[in-house]
Amino acid sequence: MSKDKAPRRPRAETPKGFRDYFGAEVTDRKAMLDTIAEVYHRYGFDPLETSAVETVEALGKFLPDVDRPNEGVFAWQDEDADWLALRYDLTAPLARVAAQFRNDLPSPYRRYAMGPVWRNEKPGPGRFRQFYQCDADTVGSSSVAADAEICAMLADALEATGIPRGDYVVKVNNRKVLNGVMEVAGVLDPSDPEKFAHERGIVLRAIDKIDRLGEDGVRALLGEGRRDESGDFTKGAGLSVAQADVVMGFMAAKRETGAETVARLRELVWQSTIGIEGVEELETIARLLNAQGYGPDRINLDPGVVRGLGYYTGPVFEAELTFEILDEKGRKRQFGSVAGGGRYDDLVKRFTGQAVPATGVSIGVDRLLAALRAKGRMQSDARGPVIVTVMDRDRMADYQAMAGELRRAGIRAEVYLGNPKNFGNQLKYADKRNSPVAVIQGTDEAARGMVVLKDLYLGARIAAEATVEEWKSQPAQSEVARDGLVAAVQHLLGQG
Amino acid sequence: MSKDKAPRRPRAETPKGFRDYFGAEVTDRKAMLDTIAEVYHRYGFDPLETSAVETVEALGKFLPDVDRPNEGVFAWQDEDADWLALRYDLTAPLARVAAQFRNDLPSPYRRYAMGPVWRNEKPGPGRFRQFYQCDADTVGSSSVAADAEICAMLADALEATGIPRGDYVVKVNNRKVLNGVMEVAGVLDPSDPEKFAHERGIVLRAIDKIDRLGEDGVRALLGEGRRDESGDFTKGAGLSVAQADVVMGFMAAKRETGAETVARLRELVWQSTIGIEGVEELETIARLLNAQGYGPDRINLDPGVVRGLGYYTGPVFEAELTFEILDEKGRKRQFGSVAGGGRYDDLVKRFTGQAVPATGVSIGVDRLLAALRAKGRMQSDARGPVIVTVMDRDRMADYQAMAGELRRAGIRAEVYLGNPKNFGNQLKYADKRNSPVAVIQGTDEAARGMVVLKDLYLGARIAAEATVEEWKSQPAQSEVARDGLVAAVQHLLGQG
Repeated sequence: MSKDKAPRRPRAETPKGFRDYFGAEVTDRKAMLDTIAEVYHRYGFDPLETSAVETVEALGKFLPDVDRPNEGVFAWQDEDADWLALRYDLTAPLARVAAQFRNDLPSPYRRYAMGPVWRNEKPGPGRFRQFYQCDADTVGSSSVAADAEICAMLADALEATGIPRGDYVVKVNNRKVLNGVMEVAGVLDPSDPEKFAHERGIVLRAIDKIDRLGEDGVRALLGEGRRDESGDFTKGAGLSVAQADVVMGFMAAKRETGAETVARLRELVWQSTIGIEGVEELETIARLLNAQGYGPDRINLDPGVVRGLGYYTGPVFEAELTFEILDEKGRKRQFGSVAGGGRYDDLVKRFTGQAVPATGVSIGVDRLLAALRAKGRMQSDARGPVIVTVMDRDRMADYQAMAGELRRAGIRAEVYLGNPKNFGNQLKYADKRNSPVAVIQGTDEAARGMVVLKDLYLGARIAAEATVEEWKSQPAQSEVARDGLVAAVQHLLGQG
Repeated sequence: MSKDKAPRRPRAETPKGFRDYFGAEVTDRKAMLDTIAEVYHRYGFDPLETSAVETVEALGKFLPDVDRPNEGVFAWQDEDADWLALRYDLTAPLARVAAQFRNDLPSPYRRYAMGPVWRNEKPGPGRFRQFYQCDADTVGSSSVAADAEICAMLADALEATGIPRGDYVVKVNNRKVLNGVMEVAGVLDPSDPEKFAHERGIVLRAIDKIDRLGEDGVRALLGEGRRDESGDFTKGAGLSVAQADVVMGFMAAKRETGAETVARLRELVWQSTIGIEGVEELETIARLLNAQGYGPDRINLDPGVVRGLGYYTGPVFEAELTFEILDEKGRKRQFGSVAGGGRYDDLVKRFTGQAVPATGVSIGVDRLLAALRAKGRMQSDARGPVIVTVMDRDRMADYQAMAGELRRAGIRAEVYLGNPKNFGNQLKYADKRNSPVAVIQGTDEAARGMVVLKDLYLGARIAAEATVEEWKSQPAQSEVARDGLVAAVQHLLGQG
């Protein structure tokens, strides 16, 4: 650690890519997390909170951008030589917990978790290096009923946060179908699963980028490679045109109804055992969801969804918001993905050597909040506290007593604690706090056993709109008896 | 980062000094944080959430144990050469925010914050390297009314979490009085504040350890130094016996009433301007609190409280729980400190060069939870979900529909998703989840439009207590019509 010998002052700055959250930004997110947790809990999931810090070996290397410095995590070496790192998601810690406590946890283990995760990535506009996730996972069930349940719960959670039906869709696909397509295209050999693994990785990431790169861009990545606008070249998977056709056909397999999509997928992968298994799983998921009333208006099959992470082994899902918002440049675009997940049957096995099936979902809470704000659907309570002003510095105890009475009646209230000399500053402060009411008691009012209440919201409206006559009559200001303070404030706040 | 070339499995372990929190451990803490936040909010404090990561230069070096490796923080070098670290408390980030946003924030700025903090310390029993704090601070008020308010709010917060009046005390002292004592003892020269700073640091830390070291231990540290049981020697402040007497006299200055304590302190520091200023601040705080009904049964003056941190400049306070608990070795001891704080007028100045007065408190939420648990005052809701068992694997959609109906009625419910073959395992699972009710529907019941409900709590009681006749009559099991499922479960849960 560098020693600052010079008396230079430290910079008052957040590190690059981090930010602070104030007031309603904090309470809005908390309300959303509480809402989602309630849904997860009602589905039988139990809370788990792991620490922010894990050993690097326990986290593993599963971030999509494997070529980033430090492999995408914030890591450091502990005194006893262990490498430690901040968690980059909530799934890797869960896999560690499922292995560590496998003899004590119920099986299946349904758990939910929420909290910040950290990514050592290049920060960009709206892209931070700390953000919140809110996950639910079922560990120890190989049944696709577990995947179906997660999809239904995701739909319920989105609706509970204020996304109405029709404004979102949960898209479901299956990695096994994709593996079947890979087999048909000749880049997966069931007798030697490691062969072509590198090529399949490129295919996977290429498909995942279809929204951004378009069909031509993906085709380039499936073939020799792609040169982007900056001139940088990304090496492709080296597939022939015929092979690429198979993959592209898979991505375009979505049909009007789930049944038609399933039929089309069956045509594509009928030669592949794993592919057909995947198609049948998709069929089962659709049937289970339909039986519970989760029709294609909420959850549907979409072969275009593959999810970037390498560890998925079966069903994968992604929730997209379907309404349009304006981007930074004022252009309309679909808001896009706010949640995703899937089945990862091998993550716990890393630790124990024994296969433990698992499936789960992660909701990107900060993105979901941004979406709700963009649609004007966040009703933040921005009302500040009642401000008891200080007219007479020696009577601080009286003012504190007033605030205390208001609080005991459940009203948010505080005494002005800045320098009370300039009364205008006190009202400016009340304004900045968005206070609804100021309480004023000078020596004169105190002697008469009275207090003055100033309705600051009404006052602001009058200042903006009133005629001189209305203004002079001071309708926003009233004098009430000191012992009627609480009732009078309650009345002004509409609680009377 | 080291590359694991060998196919060794990663260890499924939390890093040393970290732990996981399950189920009620998570929800109990959340409930406590919510309760405290509500009190803070009612007092007019606004939420602030800073990121876990700060630059090392912004954090500064204010941890009490300055001689620890890495100076007590987890730190690493970012790509652009900035040193970053996990915050070790919530005060340092607040000082950074107050400086960074000084033109936008209201002044005074009352804020509360909660979340984990990290200390790179040697872990010990019950001592973790990540723990929760829940802070409230007022930045920009030099009035001791701000300190008094924080003390009152701390008392309210403790009572709100379930600590009854009489089981806690908020002790208040003032660093200025201590400085006055230092002046009288000849280790503070008002004309050269830096002189003897090292000695004063030793005195401060020695006083803070009175509970652990006793009077003799503290005297040794005030003088030449102290050799502990392990043989390690800590160098002392080098005070003469007469000087040490002055300091020890200060620590023993507590009297029956606040007024007597103030009088005694006045005797001790009458030669010191700063000391008398401190005594008068204590008097004002006591007067303000008494006027609001916070008498010495809740908040009292105690010269024994100094707080270890070097940055305090005025009033300091500490909340102690006064009831006894049994320690690890079964010995009775007082639970001790669960919260502390004070005035720190120079922390923001580090950044801006301008003095910004500030005061605040931090509640150690994990310790407070441990105290409530030790006293049996946590009423955790440990009830698990209703379990819909799977008798017929092909009718999963029907079972899912039952769980869905229960959930829509607000009942926590889930379908068993493990291998359904062995029905005993399903009931064992329900037992492990602490489920109140199991729902059972085999082919036979389905054909008759019925379901069986098993009251698992009653069942467990009967298994433990019943006679053979009672047992045979199976009072814990009942058959109800499928379309009366929700009502029947509600009835069993006592919601009917």
